[in-house]
Amino acid sequence: MDSVVQAADFDFKTWQATRLAEVEDCLSRWVSADAPAGLGESMRYAVLDGGKRLRPLLVLAAADAVQGLRDAALRAACAAELIHAYSLVHDDMPCMDNDVLRRGKPTVHVRFGEAEALLAGDALQALAFEFLTPDEGVPPAMQATLCRLLARAAGAEGMAGGQAIDLASVGKALTEDQLSRMHRLKTGALLQACVMMGAACADTTPAARKALLEYGAIIGLAFQVVDDILDVVADSQTLGKTAGKDAASDKPTYVSLLGLERAQQLAEELRAKAHAALAQSGLADTRALTALADALVRRSH
Amino acid sequence: MDSVVQAADFDFKTWQATRLAEVEDCLSRWVSADAPAGLGESMRYAVLDGGKRLRPLLVLAAADAVQGLRDAALRAACAAELIHAYSLVHDDMPCMDNDVLRRGKPTVHVRFGEAEALLAGDALQALAFEFLTPDEGVPPAMQATLCRLLARAAGAEGMAGGQAIDLASVGKALTEDQLSRMHRLKTGALLQACVMMGAACADTTPAARKALLEYGAIIGLAFQVVDDILDVVADSQTLGKTAGKDAASDKPTYVSLLGLERAQQLAEELRAKAHAALAQSGLADTRALTALADALVRRSH
Repeated sequence: MDSVVQAADFDFKTWQATRLAEVEDCLSRWVSADAPAGLGESMRYAVLDGGKRLRPLLVLAAADAVQGLRDAALRAACAAELIHAYSLVHDDMPCMDNDVLRRGKPTVHVRFGEAEALLAGDALQALAFEFLTPDEGVPPAMQATLCRLLARAAGAEGMAGGQAIDLASVGKALTEDQLSRMHRLKTGALLQACVMMGAACADTTPAARKALLEYGAIIGLAFQVVDDILDVVADSQTLGKTAGKDAASDKPTYVSLLGLERAQQLAEELRAKAHAALAQSGLADTRALTALADALVRRSH
Repeated sequence: MDSVVQAADFDFKTWQATRLAEVEDCLSRWVSADAPAGLGESMRYAVLDGGKRLRPLLVLAAADAVQGLRDAALRAACAAELIHAYSLVHDDMPCMDNDVLRRGKPTVHVRFGEAEALLAGDALQALAFEFLTPDEGVPPAMQATLCRLLARAAGAEGMAGGQAIDLASVGKALTEDQLSRMHRLKTGALLQACVMMGAACADTTPAARKALLEYGAIIGLAFQVVDDILDVVADSQTLGKTAGKDAASDKPTYVSLLGLERAQQLAEELRAKAHAALAQSGLADTRALTALADALVRRSH
């Protein structure tokens, strides 16, 4: 198969560095410091110079796989990151997780105040949809599809709904099904949408879309399993956020449910499943998506 | 002129009642109670059975004027109301205005808790963009235009930016220009976008778009002037929210800046300007838009 041959000579680190530089450049140019009354400053603080940019990379890797429109993919990549960034800002607020450290820096409400954090998050969500709807450069029908995918992933049947379940589940013993549903909404929906937004940057076959949808679902689950593992095995400095917080706040996790060893096995199984899904896609070049699945499972932070 | 002849036999009350019933029906069907972990309940609480629905009426009146696509107009009308509703939920929170009464009911955070209010607001914003991007029924290019208009009006250069200015201006003496800019962003941008979203539900002439853009700007300013007047002259029961709050919290208003009498004159002048803008539009039937300008300036709550 082509992809096996290609995988051998694919330089993921260079691919990643190039794409990350593009994303950082776009975010820095498009999240304007000029927004009124310091709002631009708090928005930029929430978005720039931090984060693994997993969501943008998923968008760009999927867009590479379908040979998608470059401008559309960059906009979708940055839009997804804005949704992620806004959710962190709001999630860190005192009425939610009350976290003071994020990406190794004081959280937005600690730095700028609660009201400013609330507004910065709100404005970042709106800006995500502005990114997707430029006056030109992206065909209108593609803009509409990208907005549809992002809105559904961010809303009540996606990220916000998952956070509501998370909030309601503190101190409760969840089954694996319930835990899986919570994370499928809270983090999985957006990660999957990133893959599908990348795919939406070109015309694709139904088979490719189906395979990428499955890849996106697997990646979403794998991400959370690894997150739960790292919360136990890593320290705060490596993580860039407070480690051990889930256990301390009595939140159910894959580790608390399955034990550390079984959770680690599960992560490896999901990595293999992600590879298998890509092999079914019929797409010629899924090297970046393959490498991302590997990087995601084997990350240390 | 056609519009003068038509105005005589236009029954605004019936038009309004019909449109309001449609909006309530759509909101009730589309803001689902099924969202996870009680999120649907708090979202519906924030949106249903309350409010003047000025924004939906502006969308629908503008759509009527251009003979716009009905399904698109209803979706845009409800989307605008969701953005408005989410902004109220977040604005009422303790870290912002800390208000406990809204539309005659306890505010969302009082009823459901702060974290739930934060999430409900976030999910309502996402849902607005879901409303605008259905799988079918609205042409994709129209969906993209509607998303663009709404996102810009809601974001840092619109509503969220205006709220940031508002937050930063408490206790400060603003000039009329500064006050006007704050409100142009905080409430004006969304009201104007409502008019332009209605106009985007059909192909329109540049002259019509220009006239409607101007009408929208005037309406936005008039709305705020009247709001400031009512904060002084009405009581809490009539308003359905805490009256006299702006003065109590030392916020600059048109009344504090211009005095009550001059503010009332200004509102009437703006009503006349709105009529004049519509007369320049070249649109045959601007009766609902005309009547809305009248109703907005002469409202008692």
